[in-house]
Amino acid sequence: MNLKIKRDILLSNLNYVSKAVSSKNVIPVLAGIKWVLNEKGLSLEASDESIIINCFIDKEKIEEIKEYGSVVIPGRYILDIIRKMPNELINIETDGLKILITTPSSEYTLNGIDSQEFPDYPLELNKKPIIMNQKVLINIINQTSFAASTQESRPILTGINIKIKEKSLEAVATDSYRLSKKVIDINEGNDDPVDIVIPKVSLIELLKILNEEEIIELHIFNNKIVFKFENILFQSRLLNGTFPNISTLIPTDYTLEVTSKLNDLYNVIDRTSLLSDSDKNIIQMEIKNNELITTCDTLQVGKVEERIIIEKNNPVDIKISFNAKFMMDALKSFNGDNVVLLLTNETKQFVIKDKTDESLIQLIVPVRTY
Amino acid sequence: MNLKIKRDILLSNLNYVSKAVSSKNVIPVLAGIKWVLNEKGLSLEASDESIIINCFIDKEKIEEIKEYGSVVIPGRYILDIIRKMPNELINIETDGLKILITTPSSEYTLNGIDSQEFPDYPLELNKKPIIMNQKVLINIINQTSFAASTQESRPILTGINIKIKEKSLEAVATDSYRLSKKVIDINEGNDDPVDIVIPKVSLIELLKILNEEEIIELHIFNNKIVFKFENILFQSRLLNGTFPNISTLIPTDYTLEVTSKLNDLYNVIDRTSLLSDSDKNIIQMEIKNNELITTCDTLQVGKVEERIIIEKNNPVDIKISFNAKFMMDALKSFNGDNVVLLLTNETKQFVIKDKTDESLIQLIVPVRTY
Repeated sequence: MNLKIKRDILLSNLNYVSKAVSSKNVIPVLAGIKWVLNEKGLSLEASDESIIINCFIDKEKIEEIKEYGSVVIPGRYILDIIRKMPNELINIETDGLKILITTPSSEYTLNGIDSQEFPDYPLELNKKPIIMNQKVLINIINQTSFAASTQESRPILTGINIKIKEKSLEAVATDSYRLSKKVIDINEGNDDPVDIVIPKVSLIELLKILNEEEIIELHIFNNKIVFKFENILFQSRLLNGTFPNISTLIPTDYTLEVTSKLNDLYNVIDRTSLLSDSDKNIIQMEIKNNELITTCDTLQVGKVEERIIIEKNNPVDIKISFNAKFMMDALKSFNGDNVVLLLTNETKQFVIKDKTDESLIQLIVPVRTY
Repeated sequence: MNLKIKRDILLSNLNYVSKAVSSKNVIPVLAGIKWVLNEKGLSLEASDESIIINCFIDKEKIEEIKEYGSVVIPGRYILDIIRKMPNELINIETDGLKILITTPSSEYTLNGIDSQEFPDYPLELNKKPIIMNQKVLINIINQTSFAASTQESRPILTGINIKIKEKSLEAVATDSYRLSKKVIDINEGNDDPVDIVIPKVSLIELLKILNEEEIIELHIFNNKIVFKFENILFQSRLLNGTFPNISTLIPTDYTLEVTSKLNDLYNVIDRTSLLSDSDKNIIQMEIKNNELITTCDTLQVGKVEERIIIEKNNPVDIKISFNAKFMMDALKSFNGDNVVLLLTNETKQFVIKDKTDESLIQLIVPVRTY
């Protein structure tokens, strides 16, 4: 392999790919980035076995290609080296498994690994992918992923469930104490209905390299999903197992509908939670007449009472307790001016949604405090 | 105690004082901030026993004073509460040891501690303090403190030695592998010569609340120093013991004087160190003809050679090894275009200084690598 390439072009692509470089050293070759240079251009690929990222730099963007070839270069070093270089032409060539990186003033020799040792991940594509704006996908991930579990005791809950049926896509995450559900319309559905669970951690990595402007293709397979955008392929494994059936969890009737300014509600909960036990974060909320009153009383520290004016659809008063952090996470997912709380009683899960937009639902299970 | 005060005024002062709130809970009352309200205004004070910070809010800046008094309020809670409040008038009053913090929509009750339990730190001042611009003090701290030791095995080296004689102030820090020395002129010296060692950690906390615009007074005592600026008193303990005599450490003659562009030198050392062992950070530097060549060869990873053009005062060539991180720390303390290296041989400590400004000297002890 022997090529000359502008530092900035190489760096931006290395930055993408490096998100998949394995930090665990179980399989040493996965601490590297696989470079394959052929007549079409340069392919860079990395994987931590859970995700695979491949960037392709077209030959048009490469200054000079002298010799095709392939090698695995240690990910941590190559990224740091290229990042700290000035933006000039960089010459990269292999001599056996040695990699020579040279500019007029610098000369690096790195020990590479035979590219044959890098696992062969076939990055297949579907003929009929689902296409959406990256911005839409960014919203889906941001509005649901926080509700997924971080505990490996029920692995399936560490993922986001994506269901596609006809022209509707539904994303759901839950850790069994709270749940987020987002539904969007898509232009064209898969021929077959889809019901998959994508690891939350994969989607968080994907978020880091998405940009709002462009579109993205979703290629869904039995045991994996490939996101294709710009010159990037991002593949994630899927989680095995059955995601809980949530249709029975979301209450269809309720006793009280409360409408509140989103920011005011967020701020009083934020301030009230300051005095809560930092492990459990439990605060009380009372709807009384036209006020929403949040309280927290912690023996050692003190107590707090915050109140805001709300609107409600009937005279019923209600009092519940919940995890303030869950409530704040849920409220952060909305961006309208007003939110609606649908409450039943002090033990029944309650729903938070936007006043005007039905596409997003947040659900929280109250905590019994007596 | 009973007063009304604007949130923004209270917050900025609480922010200063909170830097001294103790995070270790050895003495519970030191996790609090002492409030004393009298006819002159409100004094806020906190201490972690190593430093004491006192802010005084003049009565002119307080909306309403209803009742004098004093109490200790838990530092962590009061800061968070005031920070998260909107900028409105806040009412703070005590009821025994309960503290009531109220705004039209919020009501907090915190458990306070009797202000008698708070250690009484007399914050004395000298009649003839040393006066300088805060900017000058910020530079002294930034240009020397990194060279102080972080290891408690020789406590005296964890401080910065300040010597004042007539109208000259000298600041020195060393961890015995490197040394920083800064000398400045002051308008008026102490009547007696000064030779004190201020803990580096105290000065790092002081840095966080300094601002470049104003002046600062240094009040030096036997076992403490008080910095007075704006409405703030910042006291630090001094370190006991004898700081090493450095006058014999700084070489007065040398074999070779090398002049280099500061940024170029920093960049090649930064890039060369990428391949060094991350614990020891050792790289080689060779001065050969009109080039400075840095190299590093790490068996597992690979090797690097970087070169830049330099000027030197005689044809001697020299080759030394050193800790690249120490060299980068030292170079970062300069802000001119060019630096000068004064080298003797591969074992003798070498000096780095600015081409035109003699006030700052950095010294590094080479590492033997054979």
